Amino acid sequence: MFDGMPILRNGNCMIAQSGGPTAVINSTAYGCIKEFMTFNGTATVYAGLYGVQGILEGKIRNVSSLPPSQVEFLPYMPSAAFGSSRYRLKDFRTDDREYQKLFQIFRKYNIRYFFYIGGNDSMDTADKIYDYAGLTGYDLSVCGIPKTIDNDLVLTDHCPGFGSAAKFVTAAGEDIWFDINAYQKPSVMILEVMGRDTGWIAAAAGILPNVISGFNILVYVPEKAFDGPSFLADVSNALSRKNKLLVVVSEGLKDKKGEYVGLSGNQKDSFDHPQLGGVGKCLQRYLKKNLLNDVKLMQFGVLQRCSIHCVSETDQREAEMVGRQSVRYVMQGKNGFMTALERNEAAAGYVCGTKPVGLKDVCNRVKAVPQAWIGEGGKCNTVQLLRYMAPLIFDVKKRDDFMGIRYVDHIDGFRISK
Amino acid sequence: MFDGMPILRNGNCMIAQSGGPTAVINSTAYGCIKEFMTFNGTATVYAGLYGVQGILEGKIRNVSSLPPSQVEFLPYMPSAAFGSSRYRLKDFRTDDREYQKLFQIFRKYNIRYFFYIGGNDSMDTADKIYDYAGLTGYDLSVCGIPKTIDNDLVLTDHCPGFGSAAKFVTAAGEDIWFDINAYQKPSVMILEVMGRDTGWIAAAAGILPNVISGFNILVYVPEKAFDGPSFLADVSNALSRKNKLLVVVSEGLKDKKGEYVGLSGNQKDSFDHPQLGGVGKCLQRYLKKNLLNDVKLMQFGVLQRCSIHCVSETDQREAEMVGRQSVRYVMQGKNGFMTALERNEAAAGYVCGTKPVGLKDVCNRVKAVPQAWIGEGGKCNTVQLLRYMAPLIFDVKKRDDFMGIRYVDHIDGFRISK
Repeated sequence: MFDGMPILRNGNCMIAQSGGPTAVINSTAYGCIKEFMTFNGTATVYAGLYGVQGILEGKIRNVSSLPPSQVEFLPYMPSAAFGSSRYRLKDFRTDDREYQKLFQIFRKYNIRYFFYIGGNDSMDTADKIYDYAGLTGYDLSVCGIPKTIDNDLVLTDHCPGFGSAAKFVTAAGEDIWFDINAYQKPSVMILEVMGRDTGWIAAAAGILPNVISGFNILVYVPEKAFDGPSFLADVSNALSRKNKLLVVVSEGLKDKKGEYVGLSGNQKDSFDHPQLGGVGKCLQRYLKKNLLNDVKLMQFGVLQRCSIHCVSETDQREAEMVGRQSVRYVMQGKNGFMTALERNEAAAGYVCGTKPVGLKDVCNRVKAVPQAWIGEGGKCNTVQLLRYMAPLIFDVKKRDDFMGIRYVDHIDGFRISK
Repeated sequence: MFDGMPILRNGNCMIAQSGGPTAVINSTAYGCIKEFMTFNGTATVYAGLYGVQGILEGKIRNVSSLPPSQVEFLPYMPSAAFGSSRYRLKDFRTDDREYQKLFQIFRKYNIRYFFYIGGNDSMDTADKIYDYAGLTGYDLSVCGIPKTIDNDLVLTDHCPGFGSAAKFVTAAGEDIWFDINAYQKPSVMILEVMGRDTGWIAAAAGILPNVISGFNILVYVPEKAFDGPSFLADVSNALSRKNKLLVVVSEGLKDKKGEYVGLSGNQKDSFDHPQLGGVGKCLQRYLKKNLLNDVKLMQFGVLQRCSIHCVSETDQREAEMVGRQSVRYVMQGKNGFMTALERNEAAAGYVCGTKPVGLKDVCNRVKAVPQAWIGEGGKCNTVQLLRYMAPLIFDVKKRDDFMGIRYVDHIDGFRISK
């Protein structure tokens, strides 16, 4: 089959969601469902419930037979409407029994298009399914659709889900900043945020001094090795400027030896990743012992990934866009790919499109925050960072020419005029 | 002076904020400032910084000389723009040195109008200042303006600040509900919310089953004595209906002996109130030990009081309204009063106005959630509760005829059609 040629296989479509929920995965599912129905009105759209794990258990829902109102509600609903899992498929070269079962189910429902919405681990799953289909000669189009608040997928400018997480963290950070400034006494608030081994979500908070003047913030990300005494000096310094301070810290912060800061025990999740979440408490104890007593800690927990009440409109629209584009690429004959977001760096404002990239080039790799975007001593506020983050976070029409960032319009994007 | 007669004292105005921040105190300050400037363009508006404590330290800001853009920004800023404190004035009958100092400052700035924005304790402070002015013959109008997310002031239908806290808790509760439903395994999420000795904020979450069908929620408020074994039975029962459950619990939950559930130690704040916040952990341990392992805990902390990113429009408008009305009442000669919110129960929709009530009738009293609104066994979802909460929480224009609640418009209010 030739790239770019429209094709239509005689078969049905299955969509499934995997990994941690976001505020906009359902927008992606919505885009995918609606676009597939447009291209092929006679085929059936199925949802595999609870990711590949649920599919293996035979949990399949016929989306085509749902009342239209339920499908139309999808973009207004956070988290994974069709359920999620963190299930790792075995290597089929050593044990293909799960794959046999999976493809039996595909055959039963005549699934010829498979869309898997997820992060790094899910792209690995999609890639294995693509390879197994090729190996066994089962005619199947496989597309991975990016989704992760961690924003750590390679070969895509950013990941759907990240903008809303970044918006929640910056909006909450702004609100909390005003809250701690109500009282006279010195006060440090530590905000522990998600992001696994990368600091994208924490770094987003680094743009707050561009939005609020006098904003006192330190940001610590896994991309820079953490050192206790330097941290103490940074905080002490920051408090000498103003006696209120936000410290934003990634859950995956590591020390110079590469070990997680504040990791308690050796708990692992089902993908064998360490279960993170102890760094905030660790830094709080450390500051209380060595510097000042009034150190509070806020862990946003699932709020940062599910808060559709604080959704980024850019994120929501792009999430739907990757869903729709994935169907178009598949209909053009693309296979074994992920639909990446591509920002037009040459454009005057923020313009973002999509492109297909190979699943094999994406899975099991991690994109870090560039070192050049991170300053020394907890500073994380560079023009590059602002330029990258601002259009993903701010709802464009609401703030025109705000704090030196000139938004043109939602589609045409924004300009940094200073 | 006769009630209802417009008067203008030859003097200036001071506004101060006290107690815990809310998302909309600054809207109240804004309304008060703008209305006073309208009535008396030649007098100066001062802000006492950090409540009565800051005023005693001579921390006064001339608001009339601020750039207009700073005043206009007030409604968009959560927390207390002029700072807050939790400072208790002594009884002047035993020691009036603080009062002497305070009134020296009033004389210095020729303050003849004093507006104190706060909760129960702040109304007590305002009342003491009113009494001392009367005792010493200092010509001063004193007005308390209600503000508390706890919603526990008497003689007012509700309190500015509460609607936004209730909106945050319901919005976050809705989002978290979808998040825990993404996975197959049984899951209980405990949400610990503020509210001191009353359950208003927790009870607000009780309306969620009206908004989302199949919503599995238990609500525990201080108005009903908490009992461990009954709680265990409630949770067990709820999980037999659906294996996902939200448990919303007030920080001030008490057992049958009237003791706080999960209060660690005997910490008190500066008003001699116990420092709350251990009940969620206590219930989490209890459930893990006796029922199931997957019990998560979310404490919203300051987010529930400062989240202007999730502000209730009704709350924001009413907060400004009480500020403006307070000035009007004072100009009509009212003194020693609080500007209460009064809901027109006879109206077809939600209509809310103001009325002055005596400070002495308000201070140091607490309004509880009516027993009739709270069901047995963690149920907290009655028509009365929904009727009370819905117009305070939902942004009226956004959801028309939603889930059986018909909103007419922002001013005319809403109807429950079922």
